Amino acid sequence: MINKIPIPEYEERIKKIQEILRKKNIDVLVAFGTDSEPQNLIYLSNYWPQFETSSVVIPRDGSPVLVIGPESKTFAQDYSVIKKIFQVIEHRESSEPNYPDQKLDTYGEIFNFVLDGSKVKRIGISGISIIALPVYEAIVNSSKSAEIIKADDIMINLRMKKSNNEAELMKQSSRITLKAFEAGLNNIQPGMEEVEVSGFIAGEMFKNKAENFAFAPYILSGQRTNQAISRASHKVILKNEPIQFSFGCRCNNYSSSIGRPLCIGKMPKKYRELVKVGIGAQELVISSLKPGIQAKEVFIKYWEFLVNKDYSNYFLYGPCHGTGVMECEHPFLESDSDYLLEEGMAFQVDIFLGDAEFGLRFEDGALITSKGADVFNNNYREVIEI
Amino acid sequence: MINKIPIPEYEERIKKIQEILRKKNIDVLVAFGTDSEPQNLIYLSNYWPQFETSSVVIPRDGSPVLVIGPESKTFAQDYSVIKKIFQVIEHRESSEPNYPDQKLDTYGEIFNFVLDGSKVKRIGISGISIIALPVYEAIVNSSKSAEIIKADDIMINLRMKKSNNEAELMKQSSRITLKAFEAGLNNIQPGMEEVEVSGFIAGEMFKNKAENFAFAPYILSGQRTNQAISRASHKVILKNEPIQFSFGCRCNNYSSSIGRPLCIGKMPKKYRELVKVGIGAQELVISSLKPGIQAKEVFIKYWEFLVNKDYSNYFLYGPCHGTGVMECEHPFLESDSDYLLEEGMAFQVDIFLGDAEFGLRFEDGALITSKGADVFNNNYREVIEI
Repeated sequence: MINKIPIPEYEERIKKIQEILRKKNIDVLVAFGTDSEPQNLIYLSNYWPQFETSSVVIPRDGSPVLVIGPESKTFAQDYSVIKKIFQVIEHRESSEPNYPDQKLDTYGEIFNFVLDGSKVKRIGISGISIIALPVYEAIVNSSKSAEIIKADDIMINLRMKKSNNEAELMKQSSRITLKAFEAGLNNIQPGMEEVEVSGFIAGEMFKNKAENFAFAPYILSGQRTNQAISRASHKVILKNEPIQFSFGCRCNNYSSSIGRPLCIGKMPKKYRELVKVGIGAQELVISSLKPGIQAKEVFIKYWEFLVNKDYSNYFLYGPCHGTGVMECEHPFLESDSDYLLEEGMAFQVDIFLGDAEFGLRFEDGALITSKGADVFNNNYREVIEI
Repeated sequence: MINKIPIPEYEERIKKIQEILRKKNIDVLVAFGTDSEPQNLIYLSNYWPQFETSSVVIPRDGSPVLVIGPESKTFAQDYSVIKKIFQVIEHRESSEPNYPDQKLDTYGEIFNFVLDGSKVKRIGISGISIIALPVYEAIVNSSKSAEIIKADDIMINLRMKKSNNEAELMKQSSRITLKAFEAGLNNIQPGMEEVEVSGFIAGEMFKNKAENFAFAPYILSGQRTNQAISRASHKVILKNEPIQFSFGCRCNNYSSSIGRPLCIGKMPKKYRELVKVGIGAQELVISSLKPGIQAKEVFIKYWEFLVNKDYSNYFLYGPCHGTGVMECEHPFLESDSDYLLEEGMAFQVDIFLGDAEFGLRFEDGALITSKGADVFNNNYREVIEI
């Protein structure tokens, strides 16, 4: 059993990127990340910043470097598998300290270093959807003549297919999330605020050596179950009302999550009907995931199921999204998804259904194998009344 | 005892911004925020997004609106005190779903709505240090002729001075953080991984109805105590080695934190000396915080103290940074801080000292009052051996 990605696998990732850079005639790739969007950084360096942002700079030949802010040097030295580190003011905290007493680097100096003095002509950037404006401007202003290439596809395509090591870490992470789910089930009581339930979940996650939540837990009750994205609130949980658990952990830097609706006492009849539709939908989607088919074929089956059951008005998105380092990764599986499913892709099978009154989510991770979906958790796919 | 900012206080914040917009001849302010950088959003609307990003759009006259991504509508409707909500594709998750079946809005339409059809000429943006490039480009491209003004100062100046309600919520948050600190002290054992200690802390925070961590807890041991920014890791905690606790919660959307070095067993002599310097430095800085003085006067006293004690090589930054909605807010208190301290400003007194061998942080929140610093926690400012 591994407990981290071996160093040669990081080196292989860099090599694959460098092959693409040479094909695309890009001199250097900057892969950006933040505290809440660390995917590129973790994938390339195992570094997950906090307060500050960071990037990995990969030249088409030679070694990559890590770029951090002014306060994180010993932190990055400890975590990053990339040992050459630069510090740049634009990666500082959002509160914008000046650090008047510190000598820092610039992106111009960094490109010069990784390209061994030759002039940068084409700079690729991955993480365009999240890159902070000052970092983007620092890269653009580092060279007046260089062309900027939006190169999210490089990191996305590389991260989409998981190695055996990644799959193993994702399954370990899922097992901890299941334990945390059971800790929630065993400790929830009517009269508690939603946020209080998060404590049992967190306690169990960290006891099992998770590093953090995969995202802030959703413990939702009553009408709030209709929130596709949410957070636990101060609402008091009641008997006999819909309750939604959706949460996950990050362990060894791979994420997992579970989604289940439940009830303390007897589930309202209308909600129980919705729950049964959710179970049927998740089972259908799981059985439809196969390598070689077009992703939207899965969507079409899901959509037809909802229409046949007369629940299509409960649809918001779905029924799957990529998963790995982040709980939610590219690609989504939607009505226009014309890519092919391949062995090694990993998805959260994520059935969210809601209307104005209430909603639910059944969610579990799964790996696409030659035999179909290898689902990380098949427990509690049922009407849960406690 | 309040448990949230009253609605009229949100309205007052908007009015103050609108006065400044009129003075600066700005037609509309866009205040951006993310999951890990929600300060402007929480301050203006009480909305703290997850996965997606968001902004508050404030016209110089009339009502503000909230702008969110495609999946958060019911979530935002529940949390936001601003009830008019628009949905824009550029605020979607970083995994970039297409949502082919959803009708969405554009920034052009939003500006047209809030300005009642009149043409936007000058657009201010707050949150420049964190704004994601696609959102920035969507704003810029919404009008070919409008001028873009970097307007972080508007939000920063407004947020810097705390109301009585804010001070009360910050103190409540600090009390929960102190309880979590004691839960950590009472449960830490040699042989545990650092991450395991996070479980006791989280359990106590959520039991006391915190909504989340203020930041991912630092439980650091051995050499890792020299990390000014960090995270709890899988390192096993030993007897008689330096240990650092630095963590806080967010409760009712106000943050707090505590920093203390400690030891299970006997503190190594050299570390104990450093701890005593840390205590002396924090006491000196606390006693120096007074309204009316220039901020850097406090820095100078701190620096002279370190030089006199022969510990100036342990300096990285500090000794204070703003606090409020976020654990770390503008302004920092540095050698070049020429602003005046004013009643109502709130700081974390944050003494970080470290070298290659080990480090420490003494940290507590404090409000500047006419009488000096009203410190939120004065417990455990001592050599802690358990």
